[in-house]
Amino acid sequence: MQALIFDGTLKLIQNYPAPELRPGEAIIRPHVTGLCNTDIEITRGYMGFCGVLGHEFVGTVVACHDQSWIGRRVVGEINASCTTCPTCLRGDPTHCPNRTTLGIDRRDGVMAELFSLPIHCLHSVPSTVPDEAAVFAEPLAAALEIVEQSHIRPTERVAVVGDGKLGAMIVQVLRLTGCDLTLVGRHPERWSLYTEQGITCRHSQDITATDRFDVVVDCTGNPKGLATARQLLRPRGRLILKSTFEAASQINLTMLVIDEIQLIGSRCGPFAPALRLLERGLIATAPLISAEYPLRDGLQAFAAAHGQMKVLFRHPE
Amino acid sequence: MQALIFDGTLKLIQNYPAPELRPGEAIIRPHVTGLCNTDIEITRGYMGFCGVLGHEFVGTVVACHDQSWIGRRVVGEINASCTTCPTCLRGDPTHCPNRTTLGIDRRDGVMAELFSLPIHCLHSVPSTVPDEAAVFAEPLAAALEIVEQSHIRPTERVAVVGDGKLGAMIVQVLRLTGCDLTLVGRHPERWSLYTEQGITCRHSQDITATDRFDVVVDCTGNPKGLATARQLLRPRGRLILKSTFEAASQINLTMLVIDEIQLIGSRCGPFAPALRLLERGLIATAPLISAEYPLRDGLQAFAAAHGQMKVLFRHPE
Repeated sequence: MQALIFDGTLKLIQNYPAPELRPGEAIIRPHVTGLCNTDIEITRGYMGFCGVLGHEFVGTVVACHDQSWIGRRVVGEINASCTTCPTCLRGDPTHCPNRTTLGIDRRDGVMAELFSLPIHCLHSVPSTVPDEAAVFAEPLAAALEIVEQSHIRPTERVAVVGDGKLGAMIVQVLRLTGCDLTLVGRHPERWSLYTEQGITCRHSQDITATDRFDVVVDCTGNPKGLATARQLLRPRGRLILKSTFEAASQINLTMLVIDEIQLIGSRCGPFAPALRLLERGLIATAPLISAEYPLRDGLQAFAAAHGQMKVLFRHPE
Repeated sequence: MQALIFDGTLKLIQNYPAPELRPGEAIIRPHVTGLCNTDIEITRGYMGFCGVLGHEFVGTVVACHDQSWIGRRVVGEINASCTTCPTCLRGDPTHCPNRTTLGIDRRDGVMAELFSLPIHCLHSVPSTVPDEAAVFAEPLAAALEIVEQSHIRPTERVAVVGDGKLGAMIVQVLRLTGCDLTLVGRHPERWSLYTEQGITCRHSQDITATDRFDVVVDCTGNPKGLATARQLLRPRGRLILKSTFEAASQINLTMLVIDEIQLIGSRCGPFAPALRLLERGLIATAPLISAEYPLRDGLQAFAAAHGQMKVLFRHPE
């Protein structure tokens, strides 16, 4: 089958072996897949991954031992957990030490004609949510992880640092809490969606030391953004880290103690509420799509993705 | 008056000016003061402090415009906050941007014949708590800040890394929650108090990668201890930072995101519950006292304090 793979080099190949149907799993034919910054990081060596790229998808189940899944339109959680270890049984499957991760860690991803996932990772997509919105379920779930981990009060002042793809999901989720919300970014050309939604947008160059927030989310993916986020936080505030960096980064831990800051690492989140928000029409996705490519133009899409908002792949029917 | 000062060099001087009585403050004659690692850090340049050292004390109010304070035996919070700024009015006086800090930041400390503190910092000591126990109120309050900030469940596995002075307070506070508690340290000769209290003690050399805790407290004061603490934490665990370092320290923030760790900086804590625990006899303090010196032997005490448990100063009557 056709697949976009990374094996030290990014390649489109035509004869990649199709996945075999394993017990408890489903074979899925993706309709639309999304390009995430993590995919780009992987092509720079992040996680040492080799195989089919991609983890954002919406598709149809085409094979499964449980016949009830066949033909369903699904999105899916990317962590294929074992379901039996103490971590899974504690209710933390996304941290299962035996997990593989779709297109990120020892499991072929979605940028191919077919791929496989355990059925416990799958969620049926409501019929009113089109493919081009459903493909945002994974990053939207990651944004919802913030409110799953931390109580964002409607009276709090919250800043999101980073106006990229993940920031777009985070801002739209936090907007729903009623909090006093500011987006801090470097791309004013992207802000009309947010200003229309009643969100304050500011350039990171215009931030002064007197602006202080109760909660700051860093989703810039670079150490400079983290420094801006830290500077914006009041004493006893919460700094939510959504960025993973291939490079090492440093933070002054003594100042963290003196200011009694809470640093909260935040990764994958819950899909069910993500689908509910999409179904309720509370999250704009169409304005975030920069470009759409057929899968066969994958190399071209990766080359052009830097600095873009969401790039989607349309898969062959 | 006699005072132990740091002005680039640690000195005992005989003619330091006595404090003047300011509105809203009280002049206190200390009975017993305690030597903290922060005092030692200050003599190495931490905070760039110049003045009288020391912030752990129990003493008697000898002058105050509010006559009701005179003659009372008191301990005191070390952050002299302004009481009127937004941070104070939000209930975070220990983070007041206008604060001075006793013996640490622009306010003379307690290692002198007399010193001054705002009366809103003072707490009367119950008559059943002797001076040698009351002098532990400040570090005990700092230990209580952990349970003030974070809900430690009685079913959780908790590790305290660091068997020094602050660790002794923290272990004894966390023991009261009923949690499954392990002290990780490098000084087995100090552990008899803890093993008698039913606390598991382990040498940091004997820790393996399979030991994982829900909550880990770092109170080692060195980067190696922080690395041990991080290694002991399970995914989604809380790492409570009690150490301040003069040196920069580094932590892998990407792993913090992937493991969804919460890092919680923790500093000064509430005095009222510290006095209640001392009054109830729930915190052992006598076994923690390594040595007692008259204030006039202050230089000798500082020189000998490294690697000791609590060193106290007995002040002239």
